[in-house]
Amino acid sequence: MKQDNILIVGTGAIGGFYGALLAKAGADVSVVCRTDYQTVKKQGYIINSHNLGNWVFNPSQILSNASEYKGKADYLLLCTKITPNIDRVKIIQDAVTPNTTIVFIQNGVEVEQQLIDAFPDNEIISGLAFICCNRIKPGVIHHLAYGKLTLGSLNKKLSSSNKVQYLSELFIQSGIEAVTTNQITTSRWLKCLWNASFNPLSVLSDGLSTQEILSSQEKLIRVIMQEVCDIAHACGHTLPADSIDTNINNTYVMPPYKTSMLLDYQNHQTMEIEAILGNTIRAAQRQQVPCPTIDTLYGLMKLKELQTNQA
Amino acid sequence: MKQDNILIVGTGAIGGFYGALLAKAGADVSVVCRTDYQTVKKQGYIINSHNLGNWVFNPSQILSNASEYKGKADYLLLCTKITPNIDRVKIIQDAVTPNTTIVFIQNGVEVEQQLIDAFPDNEIISGLAFICCNRIKPGVIHHLAYGKLTLGSLNKKLSSSNKVQYLSELFIQSGIEAVTTNQITTSRWLKCLWNASFNPLSVLSDGLSTQEILSSQEKLIRVIMQEVCDIAHACGHTLPADSIDTNINNTYVMPPYKTSMLLDYQNHQTMEIEAILGNTIRAAQRQQVPCPTIDTLYGLMKLKELQTNQA
Repeated sequence: MKQDNILIVGTGAIGGFYGALLAKAGADVSVVCRTDYQTVKKQGYIINSHNLGNWVFNPSQILSNASEYKGKADYLLLCTKITPNIDRVKIIQDAVTPNTTIVFIQNGVEVEQQLIDAFPDNEIISGLAFICCNRIKPGVIHHLAYGKLTLGSLNKKLSSSNKVQYLSELFIQSGIEAVTTNQITTSRWLKCLWNASFNPLSVLSDGLSTQEILSSQEKLIRVIMQEVCDIAHACGHTLPADSIDTNINNTYVMPPYKTSMLLDYQNHQTMEIEAILGNTIRAAQRQQVPCPTIDTLYGLMKLKELQTNQA
Repeated sequence: MKQDNILIVGTGAIGGFYGALLAKAGADVSVVCRTDYQTVKKQGYIINSHNLGNWVFNPSQILSNASEYKGKADYLLLCTKITPNIDRVKIIQDAVTPNTTIVFIQNGVEVEQQLIDAFPDNEIISGLAFICCNRIKPGVIHHLAYGKLTLGSLNKKLSSSNKVQYLSELFIQSGIEAVTTNQITTSRWLKCLWNASFNPLSVLSDGLSTQEILSSQEKLIRVIMQEVCDIAHACGHTLPADSIDTNINNTYVMPPYKTSMLLDYQNHQTMEIEAILGNTIRAAQRQQVPCPTIDTLYGLMKLKELQTNQA
């Protein structure tokens, strides 16, 4: 059986970990990595997982740029953060062939159209990772908890495609939970409930844990989540009636942990303010749905960003 | 002519500076001070003013408690911050005689009733200081800019009293601008426009200057100020139509400086979250005026306080 050719672009914690899993499942996995290039060339990725063991992931090709990729990617996984300083199209386009399925495992809402416009003839899969996973130093990735992937194709006319199903089965073979959905964009809004509330509050409180934030400000969290629900609804995505309660209850029983935005903030990295809050607000404006709480968080996060850039 | 007996309770930057001015104008000024007691006993207050010169203010009596005051205070100036850990009645009551006029020079809205209830037969003057003045070390006060006092009596039945006028003249004699008003409570709401916006934003941005905050987030500042205007209006205080524009324009030409809440935050002191934001929100709830932006700032400031208390 022919090996699947998979190229991962953006191999921080998420890209490195899921790439390592696909290699474990038997795929030919190559990586484009910037920051950790030299280290990965020498030692590969050291993966320490809380439930899947410790192993070294040696990518088939280690590249600093997608244009260097030799071969034809069946799947190209885009796993960078979504920030204004990263051009999602430019960093992948040189490795996209007509048969490449583009999979983006990234946070944020309304992040689909940019890729659909750039690659109208490719199948595009939108992915959401529910995982606690950190890159603790160059080439070393700790998988701390969870790991579930939700995957869904964005191409309606390709509804009979089995690419999503096939990819999810590869992940399942590697030991991780993976589900497919016909409503991935709705799932993205659902995930935004948590992201739009806990991410900025963890930064604005200078590093309180999700537990502490929730214990002190459950009411505020609920107001933020309700605004996201209202915007999602106006955009045609009906979230389950108990979405807010479920998010609140799950967070109470989660181990306290640092959100991705807090980690970025503390590491002086660009935060996903636009993908998570900015795009939510732009959707609200388009649909004329008021969201004064998210507006406030957005303004405050822009100040935080300004302060970081000065420091 | 009989010297006026004046007791200052709370002699940080504001109390120390205005006390020093009243002594300069010829009054017999005593102080109740806690933190700086030993230093002030030894050397008095060293005052360095940008426009009024440098001098030493030697209080008539230096006390650690109002109950130790010998004499009858004509005026008792309460100049502490308003925070939940300070009982404004308890710290002054032992020095209040039937003829004592109580003057509180403090920030916040809806802070009048507590004193009116406790001292129903005394004249009470509400004062607002528009000043940039810091206690740079024990017993040393720097007056950096401005200095204007706005004073108004809260006792309607004492409208013929000349206590406010007399006190403002004492201040004017000492070289500072002082004005009296029949609408001091409205003035307090007007000052809250600035306090409710720039104070929390300076803390939540981790120390950006008023200039930087305004340049980046003028729209958010205007939203906050509009919420304060709406609440004030519902409480019966009509602020001038150009209040927001005036505040914005004045802040653009002000030298960039650190707000009082930011200084408190950086010095691990209790911030006036309740007097400025909490009381504003409680007034809004009473009048059923929505204020989602101030609600958000309040929640975030409570998280900031929680984080500080842990550190």
